[in-house]
Amino acid sequence: MNYKAPVDDMRFILMDVWEATVQLKQYGFPEDITDNTLLCSILEEAARLAEQVLLPINHTGDEQGAIWADGKVTLPTSFKTAYHLLGQGGWIGLMGDETYGGMQMPKVLSVLVEEMFFASNTALSMYAVLTMGAAYLLERYASDYLKQTYLPALYDGSITATMCLTEAHAGSDLGLIHTKAIPISHDIYAISGEKIFITGGEHNLTDNIIHLVLARLKGAPKGTQGLSLFLVPKFFNRKSKLIKNHVTCASIEKKMGIKASSTCVMVFDAAEGYLIGSLNQGLKTMFSMMNYERLSIALQGLGLGVASYHTALSYAQTRQQGHNTHRNSPSPVSIIEHGDVKRMLLTMKAFNEAGRALACYTALSLDIEKITNQTMSRISILIPLVKAFLTDIGFEVTVLGQQVLGGHGYISEWGQEQHVRDARIAQIYEGTNGIQGIDLLSRKIIGDQGNSLFEWIDHMHCDVMQSSHSKCLPWITQWNLSITELKKRTTDCIQTATSHWVNGHACTYLQVIGYIAYGYMWIKMANTASKKLAMNPEEDVVFLKDKLNTAQFYFESIWPRLYGLFSILEQSSHQVLEAYQPDTLNQSMSQ
Amino acid sequence: MNYKAPVDDMRFILMDVWEATVQLKQYGFPEDITDNTLLCSILEEAARLAEQVLLPINHTGDEQGAIWADGKVTLPTSFKTAYHLLGQGGWIGLMGDETYGGMQMPKVLSVLVEEMFFASNTALSMYAVLTMGAAYLLERYASDYLKQTYLPALYDGSITATMCLTEAHAGSDLGLIHTKAIPISHDIYAISGEKIFITGGEHNLTDNIIHLVLARLKGAPKGTQGLSLFLVPKFFNRKSKLIKNHVTCASIEKKMGIKASSTCVMVFDAAEGYLIGSLNQGLKTMFSMMNYERLSIALQGLGLGVASYHTALSYAQTRQQGHNTHRNSPSPVSIIEHGDVKRMLLTMKAFNEAGRALACYTALSLDIEKITNQTMSRISILIPLVKAFLTDIGFEVTVLGQQVLGGHGYISEWGQEQHVRDARIAQIYEGTNGIQGIDLLSRKIIGDQGNSLFEWIDHMHCDVMQSSHSKCLPWITQWNLSITELKKRTTDCIQTATSHWVNGHACTYLQVIGYIAYGYMWIKMANTASKKLAMNPEEDVVFLKDKLNTAQFYFESIWPRLYGLFSILEQSSHQVLEAYQPDTLNQSMSQ
Repeated sequence: MNYKAPVDDMRFILMDVWEATVQLKQYGFPEDITDNTLLCSILEEAARLAEQVLLPINHTGDEQGAIWADGKVTLPTSFKTAYHLLGQGGWIGLMGDETYGGMQMPKVLSVLVEEMFFASNTALSMYAVLTMGAAYLLERYASDYLKQTYLPALYDGSITATMCLTEAHAGSDLGLIHTKAIPISHDIYAISGEKIFITGGEHNLTDNIIHLVLARLKGAPKGTQGLSLFLVPKFFNRKSKLIKNHVTCASIEKKMGIKASSTCVMVFDAAEGYLIGSLNQGLKTMFSMMNYERLSIALQGLGLGVASYHTALSYAQTRQQGHNTHRNSPSPVSIIEHGDVKRMLLTMKAFNEAGRALACYTALSLDIEKITNQTMSRISILIPLVKAFLTDIGFEVTVLGQQVLGGHGYISEWGQEQHVRDARIAQIYEGTNGIQGIDLLSRKIIGDQGNSLFEWIDHMHCDVMQSSHSKCLPWITQWNLSITELKKRTTDCIQTATSHWVNGHACTYLQVIGYIAYGYMWIKMANTASKKLAMNPEEDVVFLKDKLNTAQFYFESIWPRLYGLFSILEQSSHQVLEAYQPDTLNQSMSQ
Repeated sequence: MNYKAPVDDMRFILMDVWEATVQLKQYGFPEDITDNTLLCSILEEAARLAEQVLLPINHTGDEQGAIWADGKVTLPTSFKTAYHLLGQGGWIGLMGDETYGGMQMPKVLSVLVEEMFFASNTALSMYAVLTMGAAYLLERYASDYLKQTYLPALYDGSITATMCLTEAHAGSDLGLIHTKAIPISHDIYAISGEKIFITGGEHNLTDNIIHLVLARLKGAPKGTQGLSLFLVPKFFNRKSKLIKNHVTCASIEKKMGIKASSTCVMVFDAAEGYLIGSLNQGLKTMFSMMNYERLSIALQGLGLGVASYHTALSYAQTRQQGHNTHRNSPSPVSIIEHGDVKRMLLTMKAFNEAGRALACYTALSLDIEKITNQTMSRISILIPLVKAFLTDIGFEVTVLGQQVLGGHGYISEWGQEQHVRDARIAQIYEGTNGIQGIDLLSRKIIGDQGNSLFEWIDHMHCDVMQSSHSKCLPWITQWNLSITELKKRTTDCIQTATSHWVNGHACTYLQVIGYIAYGYMWIKMANTASKKLAMNPEEDVVFLKDKLNTAQFYFESIWPRLYGLFSILEQSSHQVLEAYQPDTLNQSMSQ
């Protein structure tokens, strides 16, 4: 595997495109964490860790995987060492409150760090990212006692955390959760039930693990309104002794990828648990971290796409095969000389860099929201969008990166097939991408009469209209046409679409917004590159011209997908999905 | 895994849509093999074998895989039994000459059988399909002695065959092959060299294996013009004794999928080989089977898509989750009630059935060509098209089928992730899909001044204009517009495109033709369904109405992708790919 963290592009996007530190300062973030030099040195340190510690053990993790025996899960020793380094280096507490040992850094920095970690070792990063999410939740909802007990240990890497939502019969539909909670004493409950698909439910990276468990009290309302959230530790403290709680890992799943990330069946048998937040407010409490967590999963898609690009690029530059009719070159030439290989690499690059820009934009919106409470409407659109779009595109990119290597992409040696397998889950977990589409179109757009979306579009539009560099003008024209069309489709949808049509077209609609958002990213990046080139025509010339060229590629070769997507939304009738009924299917299948 | 061979749809496409037996009879195929009842009973027998023998061992094959030790490769015992049944049942000799134990059936029947075999067990099917391809070649080019020696054994399943083309430095570029041939006596040569990625190079399914090896004589022309083809058996006969040849399997590859299909490094150390065809005509001889072999690989993509659809459908019908706002149904409902799930299933179904129709159409063209020598120009277009398009779409379909199952699609239990992994290789081997695109656009279209393409388009157009049923009319209008646009793009391309542009846009161009071809398939199928419904409104109503509904879905929700693809071909400039140069990349990467 060939991964070199693209710190220069990160710096360009963070400082030049979004002027993140300027914005953060303006919104009142403290001086010491809005310093460009500091942020850059953190990025470089993360890059070093990703390239030198996480990457070298990524293939081993895939080969050995997590091994279950007698309720215990064993990971390669190198994983334990690496997780320890993540904790000690302050990476798990990167955004945490300094009272508990955190570094209080903004999410806009964290997303770039997460990108590098996912790129170099997705399986290991999952333990860290879930722990960061749980810590975020505890900071906001847990009692002071729980915070003091667990947050420092979560941040320094000596314990990890899980999210226990799914049960065998309750996946996307959490209202069906059966797990029970019985009150024992003040804020202490006995939790009983079986949870499945629990990432990091059991492992040997740390001595203790805490589980955030959704469960239901007797007599609580049906559905999601009756769920409460509990912290259930693997070991709890009683009179300064660590006592094993009644939590066991019954088995782990055999999966397509992220093999060193244990996916556990967890059995709670009257396990001691502590209430977090209010009774029956468990889902809301759990979802408080969801905006952050879903953005993190978006980074998984992006990171793996970036890793795949680097391997593909390196292979294409060295593999000699065929001749180039264009240059009348003698046979063989590096395969990067072939137009089809360039097309694949440019597609990957165009997607990766736009994805990085959108992830930073989303993270910055989350950071600003923390201070101003003014960007939540935009965030409501952005979160389902980045979760689904960056992971769908990330998967597409890893598949392209595999194709560049031909047969060598299919064997495990080069690691490209692992990238594909590891990327695939990001489209499924933390709410499938279908669920994201429905959340976006049905709840966030139709449920809001389109206001949040239109507001965000206007915001982007104002910004785009200030991007005056000549190279961008034709793209701006195309982009403006697309938002007019998007507004029209959205209004139609709000006024006339049935809920069944909405459900059936939500993913297509999300893709439309995704390509438009990436178009905005490319206009912003191209405009910034043009400005920098005009100001200082000698500096970073290759990098900046490459940006402009990639922007052009995006608008010529990727942007047109929008026309097809718009046409699907325009043409699709209500009857077709209707006419496709289970009974009909049963019959046609058995025929 | 839930697979039930769709024999009714096969019958509909074979007999009603293409009237295959009528056509075959008309072109002079013998009466006894153009009988509908016979063909149907063969399909049913193949379905039984696929469902009852091949399917049950598919997961085991993936789990255990091929195991290499000391030059020997071991497969699960069940694979040996199953391969024996394939041979004894006449399936490997399905299209073979009856002189050697073949059944002389047309390819249009074989593609449907192959679809079922690939759907139920791709890894095992690879041994059979490669053997069928080699037998096809031997029938045409080998000496009578070689034919008598090997064909009956290939057909009855007692030996298998491989194609040995690739070397470490020679994949897509076969001109770089190093393997040497030194003449020993009349038609006997000593073959030395190392071949990689050899499917079925070693295994324990049969006692003997024959290798078709491309090698170069001393003094032969450089490049592909200097390659000759040799049959190199694992054991050869000398004075009625079987003698081990100097062929060894040095190792096998660890792969993403098709794990029970051994992918071998084969070392030939002055191994005894027999010339097939003429000296220096090896590539041409080898490629004589390529049209058949590439069509077979298309069936791999299709078959796995069909298998994935059946599992997804069955899961969606039984999995209860969420409520359906549309029907005001109580929670939970079967997930097939959700619009987004219907969209995924309908997309899979629309692709699978069009793919099946196109595969049969291509096979029928090959069958007719054998007798008339009149359809080769159409075949030259169809082969790269079906190889790339059916495998690209097949992969997309398996990914959708995995998504329908959510988290259950990612774990190995349901088999959906195996379908994805097994399907992925079909886009890579037998000439990557990039190579297919370039073969299509550069050689078969531009190299032919578009004549073959335009002739085929006119042929489809005539046929479409006879599809007069009212339901089809709006689709025919759209389809006609698309061929006008395709002709325009093609003419522009022939007149003005640089070879570099062609190389970089060949895959997009191939996709355009793919969606148009599937459009033709859906018009044909819908028209046939309409006619049948009009003639006999009581028969197969559910099946036929489902066809019409799926056709509508295709034109509403898939067809519009064409608009994007056309726009890419129209907008893409020459400079963008040009500007993306290896050196530039190196620099921007290291930044």
